[in-house]
Amino acid sequence: MKVVHTFEEVRDLAGGRIGLVPTMGFFHEGHLSLIKAAAESTDTVVVSVFVNPLQFNESGDLDAYPRDLDRDAALAETAGAQLLIAPADSYMYPRQHYTRIRVAGASDGMEGAYRSGHFDGVATVVAKLFAGVRPDVAFFGRKDAQQLAVVRALARDLSFPVEIRGLPIVRESDGLALSSRNIRLDGEIRGSALALSTALFAASDAFEAGERSVAALTHEAATRLGTHSGVETEYVEAATARDVAGVETIEAEVFLAVAARIGNVRLIDNVHLNPGTGLADRGVRLSEPSILYGGP
Amino acid sequence: MKVVHTFEEVRDLAGGRIGLVPTMGFFHEGHLSLIKAAAESTDTVVVSVFVNPLQFNESGDLDAYPRDLDRDAALAETAGAQLLIAPADSYMYPRQHYTRIRVAGASDGMEGAYRSGHFDGVATVVAKLFAGVRPDVAFFGRKDAQQLAVVRALARDLSFPVEIRGLPIVRESDGLALSSRNIRLDGEIRGSALALSTALFAASDAFEAGERSVAALTHEAATRLGTHSGVETEYVEAATARDVAGVETIEAEVFLAVAARIGNVRLIDNVHLNPGTGLADRGVRLSEPSILYGGP
Repeated sequence: MKVVHTFEEVRDLAGGRIGLVPTMGFFHEGHLSLIKAAAESTDTVVVSVFVNPLQFNESGDLDAYPRDLDRDAALAETAGAQLLIAPADSYMYPRQHYTRIRVAGASDGMEGAYRSGHFDGVATVVAKLFAGVRPDVAFFGRKDAQQLAVVRALARDLSFPVEIRGLPIVRESDGLALSSRNIRLDGEIRGSALALSTALFAASDAFEAGERSVAALTHEAATRLGTHSGVETEYVEAATARDVAGVETIEAEVFLAVAARIGNVRLIDNVHLNPGTGLADRGVRLSEPSILYGGP
Repeated sequence: MKVVHTFEEVRDLAGGRIGLVPTMGFFHEGHLSLIKAAAESTDTVVVSVFVNPLQFNESGDLDAYPRDLDRDAALAETAGAQLLIAPADSYMYPRQHYTRIRVAGASDGMEGAYRSGHFDGVATVVAKLFAGVRPDVAFFGRKDAQQLAVVRALARDLSFPVEIRGLPIVRESDGLALSSRNIRLDGEIRGSALALSTALFAASDAFEAGERSVAALTHEAATRLGTHSGVETEYVEAATARDVAGVETIEAEVFLAVAARIGNVRLIDNVHLNPGTGLADRGVRLSEPSILYGGP
């Protein structure tokens, strides 16, 4: 695997069908599942590692975001990547950078309401990656369910010839959704963080038992979240997976999402509820501790 | 030459270095100069013909915009194009279209001030053309000098690997800048339309005589424009060609632009003033009547 820093190098080196895995680095098994899926279905797997300042609305969160490019490069290679592009901030956003992209609809509400400008920053950097790398397929995790809807709309609306694939959330063995931010959950608050998945799984159980009222399901999850000390809930909401549109009754695929602060760490999680099958997609679980904690 | 309607067809058929000439159709010699330049320097010349509703701020102007695809296809072929893509409105903007692009800076002022949302529409459709066609070089006329700056910023900021080339304004033998809208200039108002180029040429003469004050040059042009009956001036302004930034003294390449209404037709024109050479670029002139009037 080769580490490069410009799109020109990627285009020179990539051949055949190109799979892109856009990331902010500091890999966990969720990222690796995307890279492995890309390796199974494309000829050149390009992993991008870029902590995109445009999508951070809190400079403290940006500064605290974990980074370790050597570790990422070793993990990406093992997972099957051929190229890793790690562009500099000054390459992605030279001093004079004037263009911003807004995807209306999917960017509104939920994360968009709590993180001002977040999805404009996501849309802008993803458009740059699509324009610069020219992937045939791009892989995103369903943990960022709203982001996935934004990216799908972006690719479709701007005529990028790229297929967008969303892959299941990967969880630790106790249910906590993997996030690079999890390494900032020390001691006691690690237990509080479990409140998010516990609340979503309770709502999933209710959904699978037949409940289709969004009000009842969000109430179930919100009540569970509220019982945990150390958890400051931002929202518990459901929306269609395709358009992030609000619904009262679940008749199309919906994701039920929560955002909460645990200490000074902001976490999000979701489950996908499919009325066709009657099943909730809770993602997949690791059987061993995540590589985030010192593995593999 | 082949006429197609989707980006998929363009990507299937285009090979080698791809030159893109984005147009709104109803060709005049300005368009043909772009197609010929593309044919000289690229392997596959793709001409797009799409009257982009997003960039029209007046529905009357959109409805009145001249269209003749058969004529355009014949002219494009003669000029050296291999492919003409004429996408349907419903293909470019399906009912659910949420993404808008804004290029700050270059989009502000002048045309941006008088045509609300115009450059957001231009940026969005040009991004779609770049994403869908994947050109190596794209050709634009300098008559839309501000648009050219917007497109350059867009391509750079979004990492599209495309070279942007701006070509000189083509004028009728009396100086009127070619525009597909010129066919709407009947009888007496055709004479009034000449006021734009006359005013700009007077300022160009002053520039070449050594005048470097933007206030003096715009005053010269505005005064000339104001003496013509039937001319309703919208603006006379100068800005840097690169960034569309205001200047007081001409020290880098500047374009001096005018916009005016002649009857119910809105026209724009400009000259480029180069302090390095001391020369004004007034574009090139036809020696015969334009094909707009029934030729070639």
